[in-house]
Amino acid sequence: MEVKVVRNLLEANERIAQENKEMFANEGIYVVNLMSAPGAGKTSLIEKTVEALKDRWQIGIIEGDIATAIDAERIMSHGIPVVQINTGSACHLDGNMIRDALGEIPLSSLDLLIVENVGNLVCPAEFNVGEDDKAMILSTPEGSDKPVKYPLMFQESSVLVINKIDLLPYIDCDINAMKNNAKKVNPKLEILEISCKTEEGLDKWFAWLNKKIEQKTAQKR
Amino acid sequence: MEVKVVRNLLEANERIAQENKEMFANEGIYVVNLMSAPGAGKTSLIEKTVEALKDRWQIGIIEGDIATAIDAERIMSHGIPVVQINTGSACHLDGNMIRDALGEIPLSSLDLLIVENVGNLVCPAEFNVGEDDKAMILSTPEGSDKPVKYPLMFQESSVLVINKIDLLPYIDCDINAMKNNAKKVNPKLEILEISCKTEEGLDKWFAWLNKKIEQKTAQKR
Repeated sequence: MEVKVVRNLLEANERIAQENKEMFANEGIYVVNLMSAPGAGKTSLIEKTVEALKDRWQIGIIEGDIATAIDAERIMSHGIPVVQINTGSACHLDGNMIRDALGEIPLSSLDLLIVENVGNLVCPAEFNVGEDDKAMILSTPEGSDKPVKYPLMFQESSVLVINKIDLLPYIDCDINAMKNNAKKVNPKLEILEISCKTEEGLDKWFAWLNKKIEQKTAQKR
Repeated sequence: MEVKVVRNLLEANERIAQENKEMFANEGIYVVNLMSAPGAGKTSLIEKTVEALKDRWQIGIIEGDIATAIDAERIMSHGIPVVQINTGSACHLDGNMIRDALGEIPLSSLDLLIVENVGNLVCPAEFNVGEDDKAMILSTPEGSDKPVKYPLMFQESSVLVINKIDLLPYIDCDINAMKNNAKKVNPKLEILEISCKTEEGLDKWFAWLNKKIEQKTAQKR
């Protein structure tokens, strides 16, 4: 009974996520669902991305948090449209929440929509929202064993961004073991090493994203 | 309908948690449910605790992880009884999982049982397992805004252990803001600052725990 209810929930979400996906396809918007544990650097990476790409692309952001509008306020200072979703107690975003938020954003003008999920290395990976790609961040202080201990998110993601590489001299994190563990659970996973603080490696993330946006928006130009 | 199912699940869990709690009371065992985001240092703190307290108290550990027995193997090397629960995909431990694990542990000889929850700053806080106290770790690289963004766990916990204070010189974390935010969501929260790496502040955690164990085990001595 309980298992059936969970399956029904996931199926209902999948239907709405698919409708979102069709809407994004019709508008030629590339959508990335950005996930990580709390404090890995999702909002910082979004801020850097907005600054680097906002002259080339029209960008919108959906912020998911259990409580507060702290992240939306950080993003808003960069002068692009942002919607804050407060999930109350829900530990992830789902297709329905995204559909409701879309009315608050000038959708047809966008090239790139970044959805910042709730900080959680487990549950967000189970719920599609209609995105083209799931991208995830793992920060070096979280440790190299996380891909094998929390495999689903690594399996569902197209790209893994390893953040806070500037801290490597001060912590016990074997970044090669981290990458090997990630490849073990998802051999196709693309892996980028960055530091939002020093900006090292960000150019590779921007290049990855630019290519994705070019492919998706080509049809509307 | 959906809400009712969730409420039924929580109520069923609460009943089992209560049965666990009575069993722990009868045996005079102090039980702490240790929670945090992934990589904040739960297993490291348990290892330090076992080394410091195992000559004084009989200690058992229940390890909760979605996958792998990495943490149980780390604990086992310290020569105390440990049970690994692999939740498969579940993002938290519940009363039923703990009840099932108790059969694998020499319960009546124990003074202290530490339950290491799944690494997740959201869901574990909703499910009692029969513990005397919930304790949580927040590590400095996660950032000072986490108590207000993920309030439930801070509200449910008796003590907050701030770990990785050795990294403060290298990161943008205002530890006073972190503590103020924690007190804002839970004015009664006890806060300890530690580094598992340098062992700074661990004595305060051991003192907190010793006092709790003395109170709980007094009845059986």
